[in-house]
Amino acid sequence: MDRLIEAIAATQNPSVVGLDPTEALVPAQVVASFADEIADEVEDAADRPAAQLAVAYFEYNRAIIDAIADIVPAVKPQIAMYEALGPAGVDAYTMTCEYAQSHGLYVIGDIKRGDIGSTAAAYAGHLSGVAFGAGESGPYDPWHEDAVTVNPYLGTDGITPFVEAATAADKDIFALVRTSNPSSSEIQELELAGGGRVYEHVADLVERWGQGTVGQHRYSRVGAVVGATHPEEGRALRARMPHTFFLVPGYGAQGGTARDVAGMFDDAGSGAIVNSSRGIIGAWRKTGAYSETMSAESALDLVADAARNAAIAMRDDLRAVMP
Amino acid sequence: MDRLIEAIAATQNPSVVGLDPTEALVPAQVVASFADEIADEVEDAADRPAAQLAVAYFEYNRAIIDAIADIVPAVKPQIAMYEALGPAGVDAYTMTCEYAQSHGLYVIGDIKRGDIGSTAAAYAGHLSGVAFGAGESGPYDPWHEDAVTVNPYLGTDGITPFVEAATAADKDIFALVRTSNPSSSEIQELELAGGGRVYEHVADLVERWGQGTVGQHRYSRVGAVVGATHPEEGRALRARMPHTFFLVPGYGAQGGTARDVAGMFDDAGSGAIVNSSRGIIGAWRKTGAYSETMSAESALDLVADAARNAAIAMRDDLRAVMP
Repeated sequence: MDRLIEAIAATQNPSVVGLDPTEALVPAQVVASFADEIADEVEDAADRPAAQLAVAYFEYNRAIIDAIADIVPAVKPQIAMYEALGPAGVDAYTMTCEYAQSHGLYVIGDIKRGDIGSTAAAYAGHLSGVAFGAGESGPYDPWHEDAVTVNPYLGTDGITPFVEAATAADKDIFALVRTSNPSSSEIQELELAGGGRVYEHVADLVERWGQGTVGQHRYSRVGAVVGATHPEEGRALRARMPHTFFLVPGYGAQGGTARDVAGMFDDAGSGAIVNSSRGIIGAWRKTGAYSETMSAESALDLVADAARNAAIAMRDDLRAVMP
Repeated sequence: MDRLIEAIAATQNPSVVGLDPTEALVPAQVVASFADEIADEVEDAADRPAAQLAVAYFEYNRAIIDAIADIVPAVKPQIAMYEALGPAGVDAYTMTCEYAQSHGLYVIGDIKRGDIGSTAAAYAGHLSGVAFGAGESGPYDPWHEDAVTVNPYLGTDGITPFVEAATAADKDIFALVRTSNPSSSEIQELELAGGGRVYEHVADLVERWGQGTVGQHRYSRVGAVVGATHPEEGRALRARMPHTFFLVPGYGAQGGTARDVAGMFDDAGSGAIVNSSRGIIGAWRKTGAYSETMSAESALDLVADAARNAAIAMRDDLRAVMP
C-alpha cells in the first residue's frame, strides 16, 4: 500500500474521488455534443446511444481528472456504471483509468470481483496484465488499475491469486468487510456461535491475507472496505486490523460525515482513504450556475470547477478531524 | 426460471457447458491463424496479442456452440476468462453470448457481480439493457445474457435491482450460496449463534428474494449456486429451498460426480442444472487425436467433435441418476 500512502502524504489529502458517471450526472449538452461524431463512426445505429453516452462519460471524467489531479491522490472508477453501457462502456472505463494514471493518480478499480481459485486467477489479470505475447517491457496492461476491490465470500483460494498478482506488480487490493449499504447487516452482522460477527471474522481473514506483504509504511497490500456509515464498528476494526489500510465509502451522499470516519485513521493520521463520488462529480448540480442553454464546453467547465471546489472542501473537512 | 426449465425439458438434458477459454485450452494453431488478420486490423502493436487471443476464444467458442447447440439447453461463459484480456476479451464475451443466443441456447453469464443498491442497479444493466436512446424495440442489449450470477455478501438491497431487471426482461439470476472451492468453508460454513450456518442463512435469503417471481414450473427467478462438491449439503438445501433452482458447478474436473449431484434435483427430476467447463471444452486434449501439425481448421473440428461427445456422455451420466 506504499504507493497510495505516499500519494496521500504528497497531497496531504486522504480522499479519493469516485468516478461513477450516470446519465443524470453528465450535463445533457455534453452527451448531445457527441451525436454527430458517433453517427459518423458507429456503423450500426443500434449501437450508437450506448457509444455516445460512453464517450460522454470519458469526456466528463477527463474534465474532472484535469481539475483535481493536483489536489487528490487517487480516483476510484466504479466499473458497474460503465458495464451498464456494455463493451463501449468498458472501453470508457479503461480509457478513464489510463488517463487518470497518466496524470499521476492512483487508480482504484472498484470491480468487487470474486470467484474460485482458477477463475480468480483470471480476474487477477486486472492487476497482472496479459502474459500472452508479452515483449521485453513485460505483460500488456489493458486495465490501468493500481488496485482493485474484491469480494471475500469464496474464501482464501479466491483471494490468493489477487494477492500474488498485486505483489508481483506493486499493486494492492481491498476486500469487502463492512459495506455502507442498509442491507449489509443481513449477512455481515450475523452473530457467530464461536463469538463475534461475520464481518469480524472476515476482518481477521483479511488481516491474515495481507501477512507477508506489509510495506515500509506498516500496511499490507490487502486493504479492507469499511463503510463510513458504521463509525463505531470502523473504530473497532481499526484496532483489530493494524496492518490493513481502509477504503471508506459512504461519506457525503450516503450520509457519512468527517466525524464518522475519524476513527478509521490510525494515531498518525494514516490508515484510511475516504471516498466521495456524487458529492464531487455531481457538485455542479448544486451550484445554481447551470443552464440548459450553456455550451457543452461551458457545462464541462462548470463540472470541473465545482468538482475541484468540492474536493477541496472534502479535503479540508477531513483534515479538521485528523489527529 | 421457466425458459431455462423448458429448454432443459426440450433437450432432456440438465447440463450447461461452461465456455471458459484459456490460452492452454485453445489449440495453438487456432490462435496462430489469426496473427496476420490482427496485424492488419489492430493499429497499436501492444494491443495485438490480447486481441488475437480474444478472436481465437470466440472462434473456439463458436466451434463448440455449433457442435452442442442441439443437445444442451444452455451455456455459461465465465466472464473472468475474457476480462483477463481486457476490453478485447469483453468484446469476445458479448459476441459469444450473442452467438449462443442466436443458436437457441439459454446464456448464463457467470459474472458474480454484487454491490450496494445504486451500483447494483447499474450492474443489473446486464439484464435490462441500456434505456438511453432506446427506440420502439425497447432497450439496447449489449450483453446478450439470459441470466447472471450474483454475490449475496451485501444483502437484499444489492440483489433487488437484479430481481427487478430479471422480472422486467423475463430473465433470471443465480446467487452464490455454497461454492465448490476448498476455501468456501471459511465464511460459508461458519456456525451462527442463532443456529445453522452462514450458507443456510444465505439460502433462506435467496429463497425469500425469489418470492413473487415463481413461474409456472414452480421455481422463482432467483436461483442458487450450490457446488457439486458438497453433495449432502446440496441435498439438504434442495429441501430447504423448494422454489429455488440450482446451478451446480464442480462436476467433472473439480471432482463432483453424477451421484454427488443427484440430490440437487427434485422428485420430478427438475430443480437443477449441472455445469461442466473443462470436461467439455477441453475434451479434445484427452482424445489422443491432436497433433501440433494439424491445420487450425482440423484442430477446431477436433475440439468440436470431442466437446459434442463429452456433452453427450455427461448428459447420459446425469440421466442415469435422475429420478
